[in-house]
Amino acid sequence: MTVRNELLKNIRQVEPYVPGEQPQHRVVKLNTNENPYPPSPRVAEALRNLDADTLRLYPDPEASALTEALAGYYGVDKNQVFVGVGSDDVLSLCFLTFFNSEKPVLFPDITYSFYKVWAQLYRIPYECPKLNDEFRIVREDYYRENGGIIFPNPNAPTAIYEELDFIEDILAHNRDSVVIVDEAYIDFAGKSALELIGKYDNLIVVQTFSKSRSMAGMRIGYAISNPDLIRCLNNVKYSFNSYTMNQPDLVCGAAAVQDEEYFREKIRMIVATRKWAEEQLKELGFVFPEPKANFIFAKHPDYDAEKLFQDLKANNIYVRHWNSERIRDYLRITIGTEEEMKVLFDFLKSVL
Amino acid sequence: MTVRNELLKNIRQVEPYVPGEQPQHRVVKLNTNENPYPPSPRVAEALRNLDADTLRLYPDPEASALTEALAGYYGVDKNQVFVGVGSDDVLSLCFLTFFNSEKPVLFPDITYSFYKVWAQLYRIPYECPKLNDEFRIVREDYYRENGGIIFPNPNAPTAIYEELDFIEDILAHNRDSVVIVDEAYIDFAGKSALELIGKYDNLIVVQTFSKSRSMAGMRIGYAISNPDLIRCLNNVKYSFNSYTMNQPDLVCGAAAVQDEEYFREKIRMIVATRKWAEEQLKELGFVFPEPKANFIFAKHPDYDAEKLFQDLKANNIYVRHWNSERIRDYLRITIGTEEEMKVLFDFLKSVL
Repeated sequence: MTVRNELLKNIRQVEPYVPGEQPQHRVVKLNTNENPYPPSPRVAEALRNLDADTLRLYPDPEASALTEALAGYYGVDKNQVFVGVGSDDVLSLCFLTFFNSEKPVLFPDITYSFYKVWAQLYRIPYECPKLNDEFRIVREDYYRENGGIIFPNPNAPTAIYEELDFIEDILAHNRDSVVIVDEAYIDFAGKSALELIGKYDNLIVVQTFSKSRSMAGMRIGYAISNPDLIRCLNNVKYSFNSYTMNQPDLVCGAAAVQDEEYFREKIRMIVATRKWAEEQLKELGFVFPEPKANFIFAKHPDYDAEKLFQDLKANNIYVRHWNSERIRDYLRITIGTEEEMKVLFDFLKSVL
Repeated sequence: MTVRNELLKNIRQVEPYVPGEQPQHRVVKLNTNENPYPPSPRVAEALRNLDADTLRLYPDPEASALTEALAGYYGVDKNQVFVGVGSDDVLSLCFLTFFNSEKPVLFPDITYSFYKVWAQLYRIPYECPKLNDEFRIVREDYYRENGGIIFPNPNAPTAIYEELDFIEDILAHNRDSVVIVDEAYIDFAGKSALELIGKYDNLIVVQTFSKSRSMAGMRIGYAISNPDLIRCLNNVKYSFNSYTMNQPDLVCGAAAVQDEEYFREKIRMIVATRKWAEEQLKELGFVFPEPKANFIFAKHPDYDAEKLFQDLKANNIYVRHWNSERIRDYLRITIGTEEEMKVLFDFLKSVL
């Protein structure tokens, strides 16, 4: 049965975001910025200890076990923390809640591609100031009238990190706009903007369990801000769905936060592998901005990125490539284990 | 720090839905229509067997393990099934996707209160035809021009079930509108509208794991329709969040669907307890429409419902009461275990 046009004409048609491939066969998977290490053993333990009988009840709508764990970890109040189904859920709700003006929202031309999708979905006007030729955000571009600002730090897919004085400049120039700093990759980078939360009431910091905490499969993201903005966000959330975080999210998320030592150790390992990967890629002739995330955004002056991407894929090595203006010469390569990176470099050495 | 008005003025302010209380102490909890029995033992087994190491990867964005299990169970194609974070997530996305016309969406004046919240959130025009004096939906009210139709069957909080000829009449009179039948409680009632999916391309049936499958704590809901409408829904979903269902959702949901025997047995028990509860309430002088869900919507001609609600709560027996027009004389009482219902009836006998 094909649906008739009379019926289709009033249905919302959208161009969806296309996520990186999740191959079903065994591959070296360096294409979606997942963590190559498993989550803390405490997460496995929390899952094992979860009493399935409790699943008959609705979970705590305030997700207290998780928001309290995060509040304790970051030294903020529980009512300064909002949790959602991955940072995509959190960011999407932030767009709906905070970008409610007639003025355009600002985000870089080269950045996380979901921003544009949400702006279009919610019919929010937006403008995309261009990164400069070194792929850096130009802070002065964000000093004009706007309906809100969002950018990742480090930026994706460039992996470039900006220091806090840069963030603070943007916050200070935009006191009447909400500024969202999307820190999905901050744990691999440097200082978080969280320390500015008390100073700027227009700042929201968003982070995720999907990268540094190895829990992409659990779908946990969070926002930290002042209690007023968090309340606005909660009110909009409660207008969609009272209960978004399931019981395993709450117990596994809290368990992960409690294992600081494991967390630091795995980040240290990834950063070390990244350093080694930088050397290897340089030796092979690649160029790239200084990587401060768990990926490297690299191009080779003599090789076509699209072709390299396809060759890698044909050899079961998955990286990410976008066939879009300004970045089509680049590959985004997630930092895997040393063994995975070795497979990549061996292949690259054989073809370049 | 209090946020300044200059900042707040462009932020979306909404009146959120207020869910039923989740008391933290031990109570007889008959207020949120949860299942009094635990989920199938296969769910506990699936949780125990879940390899926590897989959590580092993003879950399958198509949630295939779960959509395939549901497709197999209902004898439809996998591309006719959409899954979300509870039926609230599914229904909210349905509002956004299918109710995209300038004409008003229709739903009953007394029904699931989230419908109005979503319509307001998405700025969808709506009208609410009144249930008749017996709290029945008047089908002729839905024969006028509209931008879509939604109602629960059985309706909430009335627990009244309408037979399929009623559903079919509404579908046939509204060929160019999407008609959503919200079957959260259908397993306690009668025939599902699913058998009309092949005949009407404008029908979407939404169900949930939260009630009959005892999995409110997992947040799993689903829609079944034709592949065209499901594709529209998926496209909008992919514009929010590529991955909404976490790994435990996928394995636990699939495990639950596979245990047909347990499912049937628990429904049989709840329906038997409901029958006994009907007799008890009648003996106590309560009146109520014939209940076809896992709750009874009852009033007592001689007692004030609000006062009874408070008295029950003071005695750690939680039921639901709304202080709103037409239904403030009623209590919604979830069917618990026999033991829980006995506590309720003993208390009622002592006060009435």
